[in-house]
Amino acid sequence: MHNFFLPDLSSAVVQLSEEEAGHALRVLRLPEGEQVALVDGKGTTAVGHLRVLGKSDANVQITERKIHTPERAARIHMACAPTKQMDRFEWMLEKCTELGVDRITPLLTSRTERAHLRMDRLRKVLVSAMKQSQRTWLPTLDEPTTIHPLLSGHLPAQRLFGWCSGKHEPIKQVYNKEQDVVMLIGPEGDFTEDESTLLREHAFRATSLGHARLRTETAAVASCTWMNFAQGT
Amino acid sequence: MHNFFLPDLSSAVVQLSEEEAGHALRVLRLPEGEQVALVDGKGTTAVGHLRVLGKSDANVQITERKIHTPERAARIHMACAPTKQMDRFEWMLEKCTELGVDRITPLLTSRTERAHLRMDRLRKVLVSAMKQSQRTWLPTLDEPTTIHPLLSGHLPAQRLFGWCSGKHEPIKQVYNKEQDVVMLIGPEGDFTEDESTLLREHAFRATSLGHARLRTETAAVASCTWMNFAQGT
Repeated sequence: MHNFFLPDLSSAVVQLSEEEAGHALRVLRLPEGEQVALVDGKGTTAVGHLRVLGKSDANVQITERKIHTPERAARIHMACAPTKQMDRFEWMLEKCTELGVDRITPLLTSRTERAHLRMDRLRKVLVSAMKQSQRTWLPTLDEPTTIHPLLSGHLPAQRLFGWCSGKHEPIKQVYNKEQDVVMLIGPEGDFTEDESTLLREHAFRATSLGHARLRTETAAVASCTWMNFAQGT
Repeated sequence: MHNFFLPDLSSAVVQLSEEEAGHALRVLRLPEGEQVALVDGKGTTAVGHLRVLGKSDANVQITERKIHTPERAARIHMACAPTKQMDRFEWMLEKCTELGVDRITPLLTSRTERAHLRMDRLRKVLVSAMKQSQRTWLPTLDEPTTIHPLLSGHLPAQRLFGWCSGKHEPIKQVYNKEQDVVMLIGPEGDFTEDESTLLREHAFRATSLGHARLRTETAAVASCTWMNFAQGT
């Protein structure tokens, strides 16, 4: 059954976005009355019948609705520096979504070379990864931010950052799977000494992701994997 | 210092391959006498001085040699079905190399859609990922194989495969970090019932990588991450 994203599934008949309707009718060529699955990215899925109203215009008569509880007890918030090559950052977003990240913040640090991100494009990556991996929760994607505003916002008590220089305890030692976490991953060239000091002043703890020098997107996906599997359900 | 791959670092003066020499001289424009780093992918690194012999012809006079012990006690062998889109398989190779995989077997299953792989291209992905991540060990890349020959070859006692259908214990429960492991990841559509039966007959144990339906390359990178970090050094 084909799966469509719709932020609001509360009413009995729901209107597909032009994009989703176009995909259903012109790409998949689904006929009138076809049974389809819907997900709102907030834990609700539904099943219903497609009603064709126009070339890129369709709604769905919902026959069945299901509310899902979050699959993990503790939330995972990744704040990751955008990579020079956009496809690597998009790959990170896709993988972290498959691997159950709850919130993603593109983090602009002193050594971050890319400040502008096409957020619309990044959101599409998240939605399609959520649909493809059959998750029901869409990760929150924040606007790109520098470190200071991030620190002044609401963050969980468990605060980690990957840092290459110096010796730090591996993530398997420091990560507490019982608690919400925010994990910071720096850009190519890593965080500066000043940034590391600032983070420590805000109760962030440096952690090691192994001996190898991981690419930014690899460090993000690997730490998200560990924190997700550690809660292993 | 720039890093070059050379399978044999045993002699005092070593000849760079045409490719590495071309990269050093034409791309990086390194001058005569420049200090460079070398790695053989078998645990030896070296430092030496570049000698320019021609446009794409150079050797290195080795001044210093270091032998590294493997960074982990237990080896990780991933056997993964090639993906339809080659770039996804290459991502998997790059990430698993960064994350310390020891051996990779492209696995041809009943539902694998791609049988032909450009091995030369895949090897280049491994070499550049090894150099970039500053690893000293190049993963072994096997020729693509079907399941039967893989099973008749030498495999470690710890044998796992990711399987979506049915309920299986999560990898954090089943993986024993003290032992070498071979982990099989199926294609889109997963292993067939027959393949799963065959694997169980050969002492393979099915394991879960979580509730979400992970893409093939995600499942491979995520399980490699877990097994690497579990040995966490």
